[in-house]
Amino acid sequence: MREVAIIGIGMNRWGELWDDSLRDIFVKAAQPAIEDAGVDRIDSMYVGCMSGGLFVGQEHLGSLLADYLGVLPIPAMRVESACASGGMAIRAGFLEVASGESDIVLVSGVEKMTDVGGDEATYALSTAADMEYEVFNGATFPGLYALIARDHMHRFGTTSEMLAEVAVKNHFHGNKNENAQYRMEITREQVLGSVMVADPLHILDCSPITDGAAALILCPLDMASKFTNKPIVKISAVSAATDTIQLADRKDFSELGAVKVAAEKAFAKAGKSQADIDLVEVHDCFTIAELCTLEAMGFYGRGKAGPATLAGETRLGGKLPVNVSGGLKSKGHPVGATGVAQVYELTKQLRGDAGERQVAGAKCGLAENMGGTGGSCVVTIVEVAK
Amino acid sequence: MREVAIIGIGMNRWGELWDDSLRDIFVKAAQPAIEDAGVDRIDSMYVGCMSGGLFVGQEHLGSLLADYLGVLPIPAMRVESACASGGMAIRAGFLEVASGESDIVLVSGVEKMTDVGGDEATYALSTAADMEYEVFNGATFPGLYALIARDHMHRFGTTSEMLAEVAVKNHFHGNKNENAQYRMEITREQVLGSVMVADPLHILDCSPITDGAAALILCPLDMASKFTNKPIVKISAVSAATDTIQLADRKDFSELGAVKVAAEKAFAKAGKSQADIDLVEVHDCFTIAELCTLEAMGFYGRGKAGPATLAGETRLGGKLPVNVSGGLKSKGHPVGATGVAQVYELTKQLRGDAGERQVAGAKCGLAENMGGTGGSCVVTIVEVAK
Repeated sequence: MREVAIIGIGMNRWGELWDDSLRDIFVKAAQPAIEDAGVDRIDSMYVGCMSGGLFVGQEHLGSLLADYLGVLPIPAMRVESACASGGMAIRAGFLEVASGESDIVLVSGVEKMTDVGGDEATYALSTAADMEYEVFNGATFPGLYALIARDHMHRFGTTSEMLAEVAVKNHFHGNKNENAQYRMEITREQVLGSVMVADPLHILDCSPITDGAAALILCPLDMASKFTNKPIVKISAVSAATDTIQLADRKDFSELGAVKVAAEKAFAKAGKSQADIDLVEVHDCFTIAELCTLEAMGFYGRGKAGPATLAGETRLGGKLPVNVSGGLKSKGHPVGATGVAQVYELTKQLRGDAGERQVAGAKCGLAENMGGTGGSCVVTIVEVAK
Repeated sequence: MREVAIIGIGMNRWGELWDDSLRDIFVKAAQPAIEDAGVDRIDSMYVGCMSGGLFVGQEHLGSLLADYLGVLPIPAMRVESACASGGMAIRAGFLEVASGESDIVLVSGVEKMTDVGGDEATYALSTAADMEYEVFNGATFPGLYALIARDHMHRFGTTSEMLAEVAVKNHFHGNKNENAQYRMEITREQVLGSVMVADPLHILDCSPITDGAAALILCPLDMASKFTNKPIVKISAVSAATDTIQLADRKDFSELGAVKVAAEKAFAKAGKSQADIDLVEVHDCFTIAELCTLEAMGFYGRGKAGPATLAGETRLGGKLPVNVSGGLKSKGHPVGATGVAQVYELTKQLRGDAGERQVAGAKCGLAENMGGTGGSCVVTIVEVAK
């Protein structure tokens, strides 16, 4: 397998983008990535998108977006794994470059979520759960993650304050990110006083509905210096795993087995351990998810991520900065784009281009992108190439 | 890149499967493929599906179907390129084996289309066209293919009789296929006398709405003989291309540029020409599509595929047997499964296992799978391994 580098990154300002259609949003991320890479062609492209069908009535995004980007007739396909669609797109693009099939591959993620009303968006998102066994019986994602949170609180003593601190920290970070949807700080009191969505999750424990896109340009590591003078970032591993789509089928509600397996595989492939990682972007679709994913990946023991968060360990400047981009909570969560944007952030950080949210001396980062309640997961490890 | 073999194939009996859900249909194709291959594990899997969201309210099919097949926690993702989703799944699985990432990969396609009414199915399918420019203005797929047919008739003298003969031939073939949805012969008079859907296309010029799945097991060519005693079938090339998603944006309505480019690339990679191909499965979603795709791939000059069809050249026993499986017209068209089922048929033929529809001495076959009105296309060439 050839080694693979990231030579271009792009994203748009995320938010409720009522003046932009899905195709506009995509181009506003993909075009800057192409310019950033300095390439004059694309050989193949992948689009991570969870549900073009339900959010905007548009499937066949490979053809549509290759057309709008002006790169016809290259191979272009959409990849879907619910909210892990972006991570899976990275894995697919990585394998295409690694195999030798193509040299310059565009990997992107996009979602346009605000063209439908709140009920329709909740329905569209619920298709990431088991429709026949969970959704028909009334479950939605806030409810499912509330069950995970209750389990974690009951068994490990995790508190609402710890959950709130995840949101406070991620908004503190997101306030420093020019592309974040909610670029503002919030307080623990605001989180705890905000409306309850599914006990114990308040609305400020939940990531928002977002329109947005992100894009990466990949090429073989040994060609990267032909295109870019910036520090070259290498994909050391991108590993995926699955778990039961239905929460009730799991032995342990808050363990997140797919995250555990994907991380173990990624660490092994990259020849790294938790101690080698300078910063982490995790899938904080709800505050409890940040704690569970950090524990599943072995950064903290079971029940230890909440106290560590309260102690400031996961804040910029702390022992293990987590979600310095603002995470899904503050930066936004356009579901198909999220996994790609995580690696956009890591690349920016490893290049030393992250401005006021820069993690000093960052050389190696990890992104964890998850679908549903953890039915699928992709873990990507990137590092500055020697 | 490693060479890749097909060592297992499976599909279910296609039709209106009201007693089976999407997950049941998938398992009924994937399990036989695993048994056929004789493997005791799967390393990774791909699911081609056009619109789980709109047809059954279920996305996240990688997780769901890996769970129901009992292969957790392997990587599993869905691939979408409208009606070319199955072909794209083959391409993705091929690259994963070729890269060295995984040895045993399950490639599948599935669609459950009959759980919604006719209007909803037509809407779901229309999301493969340009929603904002074609569908909002009233276009549906029969209408778009009728425009292609009119262009072809006007410029090349193609007649309704030639179109009808495509349907007659494919039903003649499908009547010999135990898995076909419409296992019955029809006459040219029946086609021409059937209700007009979009002039010049009668209802018997159109492929049906179908529930169905198909699956392949891929492995490195040099491992294939460890698993199977059957003739080993090699994937010589799998190439994809795109064209404008919108028909009106093309210079030539009936040329199908993505099919042309994908076929040229596949022939070049496989080191083959049209003369080397013993049988072809093409994407006859409408009868006109069979003629245009054969011409786009250079098997016939422009306007020559219709007369050749009338002359019986593309019938079993003819010079170039086309769609001996029955094609989309008679076998059925569960949109995400179609591309995988085409390669299922070629593998069965190259193994010499196709019974009364066997193409004598078949050593090399080609499958052409297309999305929308040709906005995307995947061409796969397979041959008996030396």
